[in-house]
Amino acid sequence: MEEAQQRQKAAAEEVRRLKAEKKPKDDPELVAAIQNLNKIKEEIAEMSKPIETNPYVKTRGELDDICKRRFFFRPAFDIYGGTAGFFTYGPPGAALKANIISLWRKHFVIEENLLEIEDPTIMPHEVLKTSGHVERFNDFMVKDTLQEDKFYRADKLLEEEMENRLKVPTITEEERTRYTKDLTAADSFSREELGAKIKEYGIKAPETGNELTDPYEFNLMFPTPIGPSGLLQGYLRPETAQGIFLNYKFAAEQNSDKIPFGVAQIGKSYRNEIAPRGGLVRQREFTQAEIEFFVHYKNKNFDKFKSVYDLFRQHLPTEMAHYACDCWDAEIEVSTGWMETVGIADRSAYDLSVHSQKTKVDLSAQEKLDAPVSVDVVYLNKKAAALLGKDFRQDAPIVKSFLEGHSLEESKKLQEEVNSAGSKVVTIESKEFTLKKEHCVFEYRVDTRHYNNYTPHVIEPSFGIDRLFTAVLEHSYYARPQDPDDKEKIVRGVLSLSPSVAPYKAIIMPLDQRIANNAKYQSMVEELRMQFASYGLGYKVDDSGASIGKRYARNDELGIPLGITFDFDSIGQNDSSGSQEQEGSVTLRERDSCTQVRLPYTEVVDVIAKKQNASDKIGDGGKAPATQVEQDYAKKHRITEIVNEAIAATLSLKPDDPIAHIAKLLAEKSAK
Amino acid sequence: MEEAQQRQKAAAEEVRRLKAEKKPKDDPELVAAIQNLNKIKEEIAEMSKPIETNPYVKTRGELDDICKRRFFFRPAFDIYGGTAGFFTYGPPGAALKANIISLWRKHFVIEENLLEIEDPTIMPHEVLKTSGHVERFNDFMVKDTLQEDKFYRADKLLEEEMENRLKVPTITEEERTRYTKDLTAADSFSREELGAKIKEYGIKAPETGNELTDPYEFNLMFPTPIGPSGLLQGYLRPETAQGIFLNYKFAAEQNSDKIPFGVAQIGKSYRNEIAPRGGLVRQREFTQAEIEFFVHYKNKNFDKFKSVYDLFRQHLPTEMAHYACDCWDAEIEVSTGWMETVGIADRSAYDLSVHSQKTKVDLSAQEKLDAPVSVDVVYLNKKAAALLGKDFRQDAPIVKSFLEGHSLEESKKLQEEVNSAGSKVVTIESKEFTLKKEHCVFEYRVDTRHYNNYTPHVIEPSFGIDRLFTAVLEHSYYARPQDPDDKEKIVRGVLSLSPSVAPYKAIIMPLDQRIANNAKYQSMVEELRMQFASYGLGYKVDDSGASIGKRYARNDELGIPLGITFDFDSIGQNDSSGSQEQEGSVTLRERDSCTQVRLPYTEVVDVIAKKQNASDKIGDGGKAPATQVEQDYAKKHRITEIVNEAIAATLSLKPDDPIAHIAKLLAEKSAK
Repeated sequence: MEEAQQRQKAAAEEVRRLKAEKKPKDDPELVAAIQNLNKIKEEIAEMSKPIETNPYVKTRGELDDICKRRFFFRPAFDIYGGTAGFFTYGPPGAALKANIISLWRKHFVIEENLLEIEDPTIMPHEVLKTSGHVERFNDFMVKDTLQEDKFYRADKLLEEEMENRLKVPTITEEERTRYTKDLTAADSFSREELGAKIKEYGIKAPETGNELTDPYEFNLMFPTPIGPSGLLQGYLRPETAQGIFLNYKFAAEQNSDKIPFGVAQIGKSYRNEIAPRGGLVRQREFTQAEIEFFVHYKNKNFDKFKSVYDLFRQHLPTEMAHYACDCWDAEIEVSTGWMETVGIADRSAYDLSVHSQKTKVDLSAQEKLDAPVSVDVVYLNKKAAALLGKDFRQDAPIVKSFLEGHSLEESKKLQEEVNSAGSKVVTIESKEFTLKKEHCVFEYRVDTRHYNNYTPHVIEPSFGIDRLFTAVLEHSYYARPQDPDDKEKIVRGVLSLSPSVAPYKAIIMPLDQRIANNAKYQSMVEELRMQFASYGLGYKVDDSGASIGKRYARNDELGIPLGITFDFDSIGQNDSSGSQEQEGSVTLRERDSCTQVRLPYTEVVDVIAKKQNASDKIGDGGKAPATQVEQDYAKKHRITEIVNEAIAATLSLKPDDPIAHIAKLLAEKSAK
Repeated sequence: MEEAQQRQKAAAEEVRRLKAEKKPKDDPELVAAIQNLNKIKEEIAEMSKPIETNPYVKTRGELDDICKRRFFFRPAFDIYGGTAGFFTYGPPGAALKANIISLWRKHFVIEENLLEIEDPTIMPHEVLKTSGHVERFNDFMVKDTLQEDKFYRADKLLEEEMENRLKVPTITEEERTRYTKDLTAADSFSREELGAKIKEYGIKAPETGNELTDPYEFNLMFPTPIGPSGLLQGYLRPETAQGIFLNYKFAAEQNSDKIPFGVAQIGKSYRNEIAPRGGLVRQREFTQAEIEFFVHYKNKNFDKFKSVYDLFRQHLPTEMAHYACDCWDAEIEVSTGWMETVGIADRSAYDLSVHSQKTKVDLSAQEKLDAPVSVDVVYLNKKAAALLGKDFRQDAPIVKSFLEGHSLEESKKLQEEVNSAGSKVVTIESKEFTLKKEHCVFEYRVDTRHYNNYTPHVIEPSFGIDRLFTAVLEHSYYARPQDPDDKEKIVRGVLSLSPSVAPYKAIIMPLDQRIANNAKYQSMVEELRMQFASYGLGYKVDDSGASIGKRYARNDELGIPLGITFDFDSIGQNDSSGSQEQEGSVTLRERDSCTQVRLPYTEVVDVIAKKQNASDKIGDGGKAPATQVEQDYAKKHRITEIVNEAIAATLSLKPDDPIAHIAKLLAEKSAK
């Protein structure tokens, strides 16, 4: 183990060294170094794994059963037969997802003081053309040549073929290496490469065995027309990030144009997958939480990164999206293997640059120079500029900025050319212009610059919320030890969800129907309902006829951390127990330990709220807020009203000793 | 006033009477009664209005300026020139909107114990065909006959024409009545009626004065293809409600199939408006919060409704959507007039019925009958049933259910027919079948039924979140009294947002740059950051060089309720003040009253969290801000601070007479 860690240090050092040399991202030496580093990391991961690999596979079936029965999620439009790639989150699922999102918001938006925005999910064509998605947000697709309605993702077909071939025990070493190579490279092959591989391996349509068409590009964005004209093409956004880039300028203003700062967006994104499989993990409509950190191109350090460095996997250059120059993944192990859940990309200045070029809107930041610099400024003399307007009318501005874009030397050179030849034809923004020597009369001055403009670079952590959701469920499921007396061998599954994300924080249960029908019980429960609501804590009531054991089991499946049980003592009707001490008390039972405590029902919600605050806290600290009991007490005695009256009266009178005056007024009030 | 209220009672009574008689919704008597009731309500609303009508108009400009400068919201894709009907919520706006949503969730989902789900925003054609949206979710559009790219909503054009004509003082009484009638009826006219009116009034294209085309229907849903085949048509959902109906069955299961229960959904909905105007109020992409209460068709009572009955406006039958049989609106007055913000529709059994018919999935509920009933059951004898299978193969089931669908008498009658004629041709699901007498051999038995199946009715409260957002902003804006010494007469706008929805709960400010650069200050701020994060409370830091007054003004514009200021005492560097008592203390300033208290920085976040959680805010009745003089007086005598101390002490003790206790504590204080 130690030896491996030594090797990792060395390998990491090597990668840093090559990067420092500004090697291109497909430089073979760099690729090799990164591959080597990843290999060592995997080795270490292997070593530190428990002997039993992937514990989630064998429980997945039990978990799926719970998710369906308790409606955490299910295929959408199910009564219509469903549509691939779309899912509905049911009551516990929607609550769990909402809680994960609010934890994320607390951890990133609030703790890192990010600017959060909400941009539309529909975007006009021009934006996504500029971002590169119209041309490059594609998958390669092949069709069954005889059954036109059967589509496949070319890279997936190749991967499956390789996986099957690798299962054959008799293959040679040479074959094993080749198949493994093509398996890992499949999703980075070009259209031509994929076509060649499919021919080479003679891959056919899985369902029919028919020939396949050549691979062709399919754009994964959902198109939709905007407005009634049919002239304005729109798309559903493929990522929330673009909305952030479009608003960089306005967000920067709110940050007094200081760099660095981060902008976050949480919302739906869309990919019109060719053949979606893998449930929640590959949906056509999914929830992203993305952060774009706008940073100085020379300073991409983030102190906290050191603390998580070893938890991420660095991409090979060939794995990256068209806009990225470096990528790291956080993958979580679930029943289907390692699932990419967080992707961190260095998008460099790509997005801001292309949007700025297209819109001519300045999307740069400014830095003060350590020392001022002098620069030669080239500009046209008045008469020449005027002549441009006369000769080129509405095109004059682009010609002017073309001419004034020349350096000192260039401008002199151009001037000579035109003077000698009498004129010169130039192409600007794919239009031709004939320049006469009267157009090219330059003047020069020297400016002193104290500031430098630069386009900020972007570091993007991108979270797949539906994938976090999947991981949380798989990691929190366990089955209680079998009850030896249980003949049916029923599996008693539990979702051990932390109170901070649990869909419901507590369940209220009467011991049996006699208590459920008791008026005293009902009024006590009504009080608890009010208290849960005022804290904004979700809860459930289970007064069904089922045995208390059955009901505990049901609640375990919903991951409810605490159970509140009312018995005959609670309503003061336990004749057997002489004392009435227990009246108004309930038992509070903890889900995982099954330990129980007895306490007054008036305090139970406060206790739960305190537990909640504690578990919500990232780190801990801070006391619990004014308790519900205190609030109810204040309400009962109309304290706020009465005191405010007294203060208002005193403010209008302004006696020398207002406090004494307020005291007097209140004393009078209380006398009544 | 009282007299009017008497008339309202009577009118309401009349409407109830007519409804009790199950009058059709277009029954003239019913229509008249409802019109009368609404007229009286408007009268009463008028009477109870303050003399100055609509106070929001004159401040709208100042508010818009703040919303743009501080990036509450702005047109989306602005650097690309914007696209009508789309908006971006900036950092304070997105936070305000998110807080409004979580309040809504707390008030409805948790307090009413609703089931919340999350269904996709893309829906397949079949679902929205069945719901009626493909055919009926239309607006009527007219085009400029000469300029094809100029579109208008026919009803809006007619309304504008009528409004203009009504402004002419010289019109006759007869004209006034006619114009007013057409103005109110415009949005309920049929295509033909609108076409006729446009001709009758000779309405032309506003921009060009050209002739207009006849009105034609334009469907307001955004279409988008699902998957690569191009064969599966999808739409962006026009309402979140449909997703709830599709999941009625699965939600009911989670409620142990008990009626009534409510299902909620919060999310994006889409309307491809023809010519969106009115900013946030009419967006093409907007956020809805909808509840579908599934109820017994004989019991649509909801106790809490009585308490809000008079706050709503009942629709005329002609105003309602295709699925509704009764509608009530909650409208909020804003600068543009009364804005429909909540719509409550009785959708009867419409949606569940059509989806059930289409999918053949049972979407009914079951009720136990008071007394069991006997029913004749008609069924085919074994041989006949077997013969059906032989003769009609895969169609046998539908023929069987057709035959067994007959009543006792019908079945006998059919049997005779077939026997006499030897055979009979019947059409089932648009297919023809020839029935022989061997097919029609019936048997009978008498069953006793204890249960009755029925399709639940649906009551739908539907909230426009973006409209609530608009109302909150307009209702919370005010300008501070002008400072007489201010030559520039700067408007000092304040957003008096309640802490529960305020985007940021507090601002941290150093008195000036010397403190901002002080290490002690920085470490204290770091502590506060951690505490805010752990409570999940948004906050800001303003350590810019601007004067403290300017920074307070900035924070007022963001609606920040509390300001935390660090001065030289805070960092123990106030040489002038001999004592070090003040070290580590900060001032906490309340936005509206401008009152300040001094307290240890270690306690300040807890105090803010208390204020946040307290359902009724102690020492702050949410009243209009006190006058400057009163504020200074209160500040001088530390009234808020001292009274709050006394209240806090009393709350923790909970004596029988808290008011007396507070009085006593204050008396002691004043003695000192």
